[in-house]
Amino acid sequence: MSEINSVGIVAPQIAHFNAPLTLTCGAVLPEFDLIYETYGELNADKSNAVLICHALSGTHHVAGRHTAEDKHAGWWDNLIGPGKPLDTNKFFVIGMNNLGGCHGSTGPASINPATGIPFGASFPVVTVEDWVNSQAMLADYLGITTFAAVVGGSLGGMQTLQWSLAYPDRIKHALVIASAPNLTAQNMAFNEVARQAIITDPEFYGGDYYAHHVVPRRGLRIARMLGHITYLSNDVMGAKFGRKLKDTIKYSFDVEFEMESYLRYQADKFAGEFDANTYIRMTRALDYFDPAAAFAGDLSAAFKHVTAKFLVLSFTSDWRFSPARSREIVKALLDNALPVKYAEVTAAHGHDAFLMQDAHYHAILQRYLSQVEV
Amino acid sequence: MSEINSVGIVAPQIAHFNAPLTLTCGAVLPEFDLIYETYGELNADKSNAVLICHALSGTHHVAGRHTAEDKHAGWWDNLIGPGKPLDTNKFFVIGMNNLGGCHGSTGPASINPATGIPFGASFPVVTVEDWVNSQAMLADYLGITTFAAVVGGSLGGMQTLQWSLAYPDRIKHALVIASAPNLTAQNMAFNEVARQAIITDPEFYGGDYYAHHVVPRRGLRIARMLGHITYLSNDVMGAKFGRKLKDTIKYSFDVEFEMESYLRYQADKFAGEFDANTYIRMTRALDYFDPAAAFAGDLSAAFKHVTAKFLVLSFTSDWRFSPARSREIVKALLDNALPVKYAEVTAAHGHDAFLMQDAHYHAILQRYLSQVEV
Repeated sequence: MSEINSVGIVAPQIAHFNAPLTLTCGAVLPEFDLIYETYGELNADKSNAVLICHALSGTHHVAGRHTAEDKHAGWWDNLIGPGKPLDTNKFFVIGMNNLGGCHGSTGPASINPATGIPFGASFPVVTVEDWVNSQAMLADYLGITTFAAVVGGSLGGMQTLQWSLAYPDRIKHALVIASAPNLTAQNMAFNEVARQAIITDPEFYGGDYYAHHVVPRRGLRIARMLGHITYLSNDVMGAKFGRKLKDTIKYSFDVEFEMESYLRYQADKFAGEFDANTYIRMTRALDYFDPAAAFAGDLSAAFKHVTAKFLVLSFTSDWRFSPARSREIVKALLDNALPVKYAEVTAAHGHDAFLMQDAHYHAILQRYLSQVEV
Repeated sequence: MSEINSVGIVAPQIAHFNAPLTLTCGAVLPEFDLIYETYGELNADKSNAVLICHALSGTHHVAGRHTAEDKHAGWWDNLIGPGKPLDTNKFFVIGMNNLGGCHGSTGPASINPATGIPFGASFPVVTVEDWVNSQAMLADYLGITTFAAVVGGSLGGMQTLQWSLAYPDRIKHALVIASAPNLTAQNMAFNEVARQAIITDPEFYGGDYYAHHVVPRRGLRIARMLGHITYLSNDVMGAKFGRKLKDTIKYSFDVEFEMESYLRYQADKFAGEFDANTYIRMTRALDYFDPAAAFAGDLSAAFKHVTAKFLVLSFTSDWRFSPARSREIVKALLDNALPVKYAEVTAAHGHDAFLMQDAHYHAILQRYLSQVEV
C-alpha cells in the first residue's frame, strides 16, 4: 500500500498508570491504561507535540492504517499526514482513547483488578476535566511538558477548551472545532433520550450486562440513529435521501424510504461495535461540561487565566453545535484580550463537517498550523 | 362549573359505518366506528359546519369538558367556544378521532368482529387520504354536504390540504396551521427512530401485545420524549429549562437536570395512555402524505382542481414544520390563482405554538373566521 500523504501503517501502544487518579465524582482509579497512537517524530526539545482529543464515539486511531489490508484509515486521516494540514513532517501527533472508552483505555468493559470481573456499572462517571487530567498524565509519560497544540472537534473541542483552562502553561495553541462552551437544553434532551433507550433496554441489566453475555443492542441502535440525525444538517439529509423510496410503497413498517435504510444500517453497525456503558458516560461528560458554571455563567470570567492562542472554527449548517455557540467562546476570549482567530465555514454537512474533507476548511487549518512555532 | 366562553359539558358520540371502506393500502374495512364530538348547533341549511382534524396524538375531544370535575378541557379549547376565534355561536364544530386511533374510533386495539380479538398487527396502515375519506363518510352521516371550513394543525393541516384536493366541492375554507406539504428526510428520520424504539421493544410482540397483557412501554417512552424535543423550539427549551439542575450534581444516570425530569414525566404519562400500534400508524401516515408525488413533485400541479379559500399559518420558531414549508403551500396556491392569506406568527414555542393561547395568533384566526360566510 502506498497512499499519498499517509502516515502509513501504525500500531497502538498502551501506557499503564499505577498512580491513582481522583475523578471529579470523587471516585479514585488506583490504576489505569490509556491506549494511544503517535504519528511523526517527537523533536529533540519535545516542542512539536500535538494532542488530538476525540469526540463521543472517537478512538485513539486517528490516522493511518493498522495493516496493509485495513479497509478504514483513522477517523481524521484526511487531516493528518506528511503535507496534510496537521503535517507529520513538522508535528508529533498523538491520538488517544479517553478513560471510560471501549477501544483499549480502561473503561466499563475492562476487568476491574480488584474483582476480576468487568467494572460494568461500578465504573465511575468521568468528566471532561478527568479526561484532560489523564491526558496530562499521558503527556508526562511521553516526556511532553507543553503541547504545541491541542486539537479537538465537538466533545473533543470541549477537552481542548479544558486544556486551556486547567493547564495554561502546557498548551500553546488551542484548536476548538464545531464545539460549544456547554450543552443547550436541547442538546441535553437528545442525550437523555439516547441514555434512556439504553438504560431501559432489558438487556442493560443496570450496566452489568457483560455477565449475562448480552449487550443492550436495542438501546444502542436508537441512540446511534438519534445521533446521526443531529450530526447531519436538514439540507444534506434532504439532498442525500430526500423522500426517496427503496422500492414501491408497501404500506408497512419495514424499510420504505432510503433514509430509514441508512439509519438502520448505521444503528446495526454501531450496536455491534460500541460499548453501551461507554456511550452513556460520554453523553454525561458532555452534559456536565460547563466551565462558566463556577463563575455564575460568566464564560469570560472562566477564561481569566487562559494563555493559549486560539483557532475557533464552526460550520454554518451545524445545528448541534451552531456557529453562535462558537462565537460565545470567541467573545469570552476577546473579553480577555486573548489572541483568537475565528472562521465560520460555509458547509452543507452539518456537525459532521468537522470530520470531512473540505478544501476551504482544511486550508484554514493548514494556514493556522503552518504558523505554529515548534 | 361556569367557565367563561366554554362550550361546557360535552359528550362523545359514536357513528357506526357498515359500508365497507377501501383503504389506500388495498385493505378493506367492512365496518368501523368513528367517535366524535360536536360544539354549537348545525344551522337549518347545514352550512355552518367546521371539521377539526387532529394531529399525531390528538383526539375527538377538542373543546369543553366531559364532566364538571374534568380537570382537562379539550385540546383546542382555547380556540373553540362562544365568542372564541372558532365561535360556536356561529359555527357547528366537529371533532373526531381518526381511524386507527386509540380513543374510540376503530383502531388496532379494537376487537376485530371477524376474530373476536383485537386487530393488533392486522390493523391496516392508514393514510391521510383514508382519514379524509372516512371523515367525508362522517359528514354524510351528519347530513353535511359542504364544510364552511376544515381546520387542522400539523398532521391535521395535511388532512385539511387533502380535503381541498379530494373533495373540492365539499370545503369552502381550508385553515392549514403549522403544517407542510410533505415530510422532510429529517422529519421522517425522527419518525423512524420513534417507530424502531417501539417495534424493537420486546413487549411489542410484532404488534400483538394485547394478548400478552403488556404494552411496549419502553418504546413509547422513547418515542414521546423524542416527539417533545421536536415540538419545542431550542430557545423555549433554553428559557424553560436551560441547564437547571434538579439538585446538586450526583454524577449518575438518574435525573440530574430539570430537562430530564420533564422528558421522563411526559414519557411516563404518554406510555400509560397511548396505544403503540396507533402511534406507529400515525407516523406512517405522516411519512406517506405527499400530494405532489403523483405530479413529479410539482405541488402547483397537484393543486390544479382545488377551489377552497385558504388561510395558511406558520410559527417562526417551528423547526419541525418550518415557515418555509408553509410558504411552499402558499406558492402552489398562488400559482393556481387561489385566494390565500398567509401569516408567519412570531412565536417562541416552536411547533407547539399552534396549540397555545397567543393573542396575535388567535386574532388572525378570529378575523379570518369572522369573514367566513355561513
